[in-house]
Amino acid sequence: MKVRGVHYRTIWDNGDGSVGIIDQTRLPHAFETLTLKTLANAAHAIKIMQVRGAPLIGVTAAYGVCLALKADASDAGLESACATLAATRPTAVNLNWALREMQKTLSRVPPSERVAAAYAKAAQMADEDAKTCRMIGQHGKMIISDIAARKNGRVNVLTHCNAGWLACVDWGTALSPIYHAHDAGLPIHVWVDETRPRNQGAALTAFELGAHGVPHTIIADNAGGHLMQHGSVDLCIVGCDRLTATGDAANKIGTYLKALAAKDNGVPFYVALPQSTIDWTLSDGVREIPIEERDEREVTHMSGSTSSGEILTVQVTAPGSNAANPAFDVTPARLVTGLMTERGVTPASRYGLAELYPDRISEALTGAA
Amino acid sequence: MKVRGVHYRTIWDNGDGSVGIIDQTRLPHAFETLTLKTLANAAHAIKIMQVRGAPLIGVTAAYGVCLALKADASDAGLESACATLAATRPTAVNLNWALREMQKTLSRVPPSERVAAAYAKAAQMADEDAKTCRMIGQHGKMIISDIAARKNGRVNVLTHCNAGWLACVDWGTALSPIYHAHDAGLPIHVWVDETRPRNQGAALTAFELGAHGVPHTIIADNAGGHLMQHGSVDLCIVGCDRLTATGDAANKIGTYLKALAAKDNGVPFYVALPQSTIDWTLSDGVREIPIEERDEREVTHMSGSTSSGEILTVQVTAPGSNAANPAFDVTPARLVTGLMTERGVTPASRYGLAELYPDRISEALTGAA
Repeated sequence: MKVRGVHYRTIWDNGDGSVGIIDQTRLPHAFETLTLKTLANAAHAIKIMQVRGAPLIGVTAAYGVCLALKADASDAGLESACATLAATRPTAVNLNWALREMQKTLSRVPPSERVAAAYAKAAQMADEDAKTCRMIGQHGKMIISDIAARKNGRVNVLTHCNAGWLACVDWGTALSPIYHAHDAGLPIHVWVDETRPRNQGAALTAFELGAHGVPHTIIADNAGGHLMQHGSVDLCIVGCDRLTATGDAANKIGTYLKALAAKDNGVPFYVALPQSTIDWTLSDGVREIPIEERDEREVTHMSGSTSSGEILTVQVTAPGSNAANPAFDVTPARLVTGLMTERGVTPASRYGLAELYPDRISEALTGAA
Repeated sequence: MKVRGVHYRTIWDNGDGSVGIIDQTRLPHAFETLTLKTLANAAHAIKIMQVRGAPLIGVTAAYGVCLALKADASDAGLESACATLAATRPTAVNLNWALREMQKTLSRVPPSERVAAAYAKAAQMADEDAKTCRMIGQHGKMIISDIAARKNGRVNVLTHCNAGWLACVDWGTALSPIYHAHDAGLPIHVWVDETRPRNQGAALTAFELGAHGVPHTIIADNAGGHLMQHGSVDLCIVGCDRLTATGDAANKIGTYLKALAAKDNGVPFYVALPQSTIDWTLSDGVREIPIEERDEREVTHMSGSTSSGEILTVQVTAPGSNAANPAFDVTPARLVTGLMTERGVTPASRYGLAELYPDRISEALTGAA
């Protein structure tokens, strides 16, 4: 998407063997790009979250393999590069998937041809992610244009956390329909939940919407219910970290509260996701999806920019008080109006998923009532 | 309540003509008391929020009149003192009520006896507020002890914002049942919503619970629904800024979201309030209660303590993005299990209120179905 009128992806091949990324640790206070030249550069970028978001981490790891093979294209070099990259974020499922894909492709290629094959494969993975996100947006945009057609005036979308292009290669998931609607000239405005405790909404979603020129307003996570009670939200679109075969959606903590408010006020609530997010083995999200408990310091401390531009961290809680920090919650399918995927929009249910993914129908319908 | 083992009220008569307060602008990072000696001191304390919370503002204004009369006990002096104090927080209903009470009492007293009468009246107002809050707590405690009796183990209460003794003279409203339960030896633990954007939970509620020794854990406002889904909340108790005659409760923004989650998970949801909070003229809270829109800077910036102890403000949002800041929302009576008042616990309905306040029965039942 665009930053100050220039189109960017979150990661790109510079054509000289190096790879460009946006340094996301500097956002939203500064927009800076970095050049990765070595395996160590790529591993460091993933580890300290200069790149973040499951799809982007995967593609960065793929390019990390490319950078490593320039120095050592042997089997041992490939093996060692993958081990180094896998250790950067041990729980990232996409990271391991991307490394397995690279290994599978490259182990069949003689060492002398591996560098070129690696760059081609990494580029393909980046393009595929961008395409998946673009398709989610094209399908999701139809929902927004339907609402715009019924309504005279701007369409107000509420979103939670950052499911935007900064977490992917381009477009994003929940934000892709919004970018498509905006680029198509539909009058759209986004309520951006700040998304405590890590503030991905206030920092990243607000940054990327602003950089692309999409009208938006940041709100405290507490405000969405009130806005829905007063007709100020036409629909909600959120991302998803893991979807059960029954349509229960694990997403950033607080998503469930917005889904409850949407239901209570008759506001459509959509979850945007690629097929890779579906865990066909699960049928009860609240019981079965383990929720990561993160460092309490994310709740007790906040970072920001002082008036002189310095980035500082301050404690915002009473000294001596403990905090708890569950990172995700599960929104039951009964609260979800529909799923926006790269294949289309479908109900959040076994039947909805089976219709969209007939190739997975036996898994989709296992245990269905 | 207690701070480091010593019992405090939020305001007290030093006995030498001066008045003591806790400097709440320094909380939670430092606990400091101040001495008010003049009308100007009292007006300043209200204006810059060294004292805050409707009941405490009212009592501080009453003591401000006392301090003014020491210098000038004439009718003109009384009049001028009330005008000065009324201008400090123009929208504070309790402030004006307290000043009217003082004027009514003192205008009947000859100037030579006014100072003594003023201190007596201010003390009476402070005592009455403390008594009202104590009674709310005694009644509310019964709900907690019922749950404790049914449950083996600690009772987990979730609260939002600060409806504690720091906003009143002593005990608080929503926190009074918690203090009563804790002081009675019931095993109690409080989930404290941080309460963005002003963080009154993380700062003030956590401070006062910690200072009194009540076990508690701060959580992001996003976390409550997840905790309720997993059985970690036994009941919710929140305060109230305005209650309709039908039981709809306006309270700090985000209260409505917690009430929805409580309903969805079968968790009892109580609103604690004194009779003075009931607006008998209103019957539809969502439609009729105007919601204050506050400065967006409360959302975009946060204050806290640096590691060296300095209090600093940082911007936590993307530069250039606007924010909206509705300060309250309305929880419909259908989501409220009961009201905890100084007269007892009652359903959030016209009939519930009529039973508790038979002296207001004609207002309570106007328009009742």
